[in-house]
Amino acid sequence: MTVKPITDPVIAIDVMGGDAGPADVLAAVDIAAERYPKARFRLHGREADIVAALGKLPRLRARAEIFHTDDVVLGTDKPSQALRRSRTSSMGMAIQSVKDGAAHAAVSAGNTGALMALSLFALRTMDGIDRPALAALLPTLKNDSVVLDLGANTECDTENLVQFAIMGAAFARTVLGLDRPRVALLNIGEEELKGTGEIKDAAGLLRGADLPMAFQGFVEGDKIGQGDVDVIVTDGFSGNIALKTAEGTGKLVTGLLAQAFRSSWLTQIGYFLSRGALRALRAHLDPNAHNGAVLLGLNGLVVKSHGSANIRGIANAIGVAHDLVVDQVGERIARDLANFRAHRPDIADAEAPL
Amino acid sequence: MTVKPITDPVIAIDVMGGDAGPADVLAAVDIAAERYPKARFRLHGREADIVAALGKLPRLRARAEIFHTDDVVLGTDKPSQALRRSRTSSMGMAIQSVKDGAAHAAVSAGNTGALMALSLFALRTMDGIDRPALAALLPTLKNDSVVLDLGANTECDTENLVQFAIMGAAFARTVLGLDRPRVALLNIGEEELKGTGEIKDAAGLLRGADLPMAFQGFVEGDKIGQGDVDVIVTDGFSGNIALKTAEGTGKLVTGLLAQAFRSSWLTQIGYFLSRGALRALRAHLDPNAHNGAVLLGLNGLVVKSHGSANIRGIANAIGVAHDLVVDQVGERIARDLANFRAHRPDIADAEAPL
Repeated sequence: MTVKPITDPVIAIDVMGGDAGPADVLAAVDIAAERYPKARFRLHGREADIVAALGKLPRLRARAEIFHTDDVVLGTDKPSQALRRSRTSSMGMAIQSVKDGAAHAAVSAGNTGALMALSLFALRTMDGIDRPALAALLPTLKNDSVVLDLGANTECDTENLVQFAIMGAAFARTVLGLDRPRVALLNIGEEELKGTGEIKDAAGLLRGADLPMAFQGFVEGDKIGQGDVDVIVTDGFSGNIALKTAEGTGKLVTGLLAQAFRSSWLTQIGYFLSRGALRALRAHLDPNAHNGAVLLGLNGLVVKSHGSANIRGIANAIGVAHDLVVDQVGERIARDLANFRAHRPDIADAEAPL
Repeated sequence: MTVKPITDPVIAIDVMGGDAGPADVLAAVDIAAERYPKARFRLHGREADIVAALGKLPRLRARAEIFHTDDVVLGTDKPSQALRRSRTSSMGMAIQSVKDGAAHAAVSAGNTGALMALSLFALRTMDGIDRPALAALLPTLKNDSVVLDLGANTECDTENLVQFAIMGAAFARTVLGLDRPRVALLNIGEEELKGTGEIKDAAGLLRGADLPMAFQGFVEGDKIGQGDVDVIVTDGFSGNIALKTAEGTGKLVTGLLAQAFRSSWLTQIGYFLSRGALRALRAHLDPNAHNGAVLLGLNGLVVKSHGSANIRGIANAIGVAHDLVVDQVGERIARDLANFRAHRPDIADAEAPL
């Protein structure tokens, strides 16, 4: 199978999702339109709001089509409530346009639970993938690392973890531009006897497999920030805990730092002299620079922008969608899965779809 | 049941455990001897090393007894290898002296897996506790928080989590000096529908119980650093991931900060002016200030000092052991468990030991 790049991607945007509001979402789409001159956009949301914003964005207006709806999935809506509006809400319509083949990817900054439920319902999992995984980039001392699953699946079995590793490696090849990403399973020790049975079995399968990745075994939580591994694979519960603990600790340390600088006039001068470098530090850790979590393993791409992302952050999430479409990450995953199965007939027999 | 304080605690020390070496471990015990004038110490390890160090520590020498052994559990020993030396190794002998009633608590900076295995084997779990939990303090923006389990149990059921909550609250009452600690279960969302069945069921049991704690429901990983909850309850896998991710992120941010300060002569002057406040920040986050993880739920107290702790850190771990002995945390846990069961006859019937 050859993977042909798609040169003119169409991206469906849920204009109403997230905290930013339609004007900022469309300003972000306009930045993406500038960056990707061949991309086109389907804008789902309130026509009046969209038309008003497009008045100031002629470049985007020329490459966008508007699909009106008044129905918006709220942050407080349960997945079951969102599922009932899969064809009427701006989020549901954006995903539906991927299903219908009218768009290559959908981007939304709305309710994560609703987005996962609507995406799974409309797009279904790829052949050979039992469950989708939410993947995103985390900052480290070196390059960014990919972490998945971040909360799509509370509990995972061995096969899920192996599939996540394959999907995460394909994602890293596109988004981090690596030929052979280093992949490890998140565990509570690096020794082979540590961890759950699922993790140990997944390590055994990945260790022997011929895949376009350098499998490194286990990695512990304290190594996530070091950047010595490119893809960190875990179940959605632990991944979510790790991601949010990292966020919280980052805030804790920068909060304590702000207290420290405020503590005397001497430290305030110290802050003043160092502020350029401190701003660079903040920029390195800024979630907007790493925005765009991807739901991998479905028949179609869905990218989740952080609900509180700013214009630049939303533009970055659209960029992630664009790059994954152009690189045909779904095709890559399908090819890697097929190779993996072909070389492990025990698994192929037991797990092949009937 | 009345809890009578123990005023003259005896603490058994594994002099050989950890990276510090016998001289530093004994320097730490000497600090504890100064802080707690009524405490006495049983020193397990190589007599020649101990006698040499005690030559300079007359205060400690007067209140310590030496128990010689040449056998030391190594950092690389598996739990099964350590178990074979439960009566000959310095770690095993320290725990054995708690079992024999010769000491109230044991402290070791040695191999965590070995320490947990030896402790469980020698001391067994308390009545009503199915599994022990490793609990420790984490720094936050406000006061320290207790987190448990940090890795004693990879997988946990509902009853385990409820028991951990009761034990963690008792620990927080002693170590943090709180009357009614705020307790929450670590989860991937704060809504009631999130998380595993075990977590949801544990929340249901704790919500209705009459216990000396303020149960807060669920807490997410990003709130750990905020200090709005005193006790965070989770299974050992997620707890270990959260603890180590927090450690790693702390190192990431402080590493980036050091890079930022080195970036120009201006920022170097900025650092120079701010260094007092930055030192206070480092002290706040220093693991030595929070040293002393406790294995709760056994018939006897065992405290794990971090393997790389310095003299002050080891002294703090001995202090944790001392305070828990004086406050009789084991009796408190037994009393809270009995109350919990008395008010929940459904549980008492199903779970009472036959």
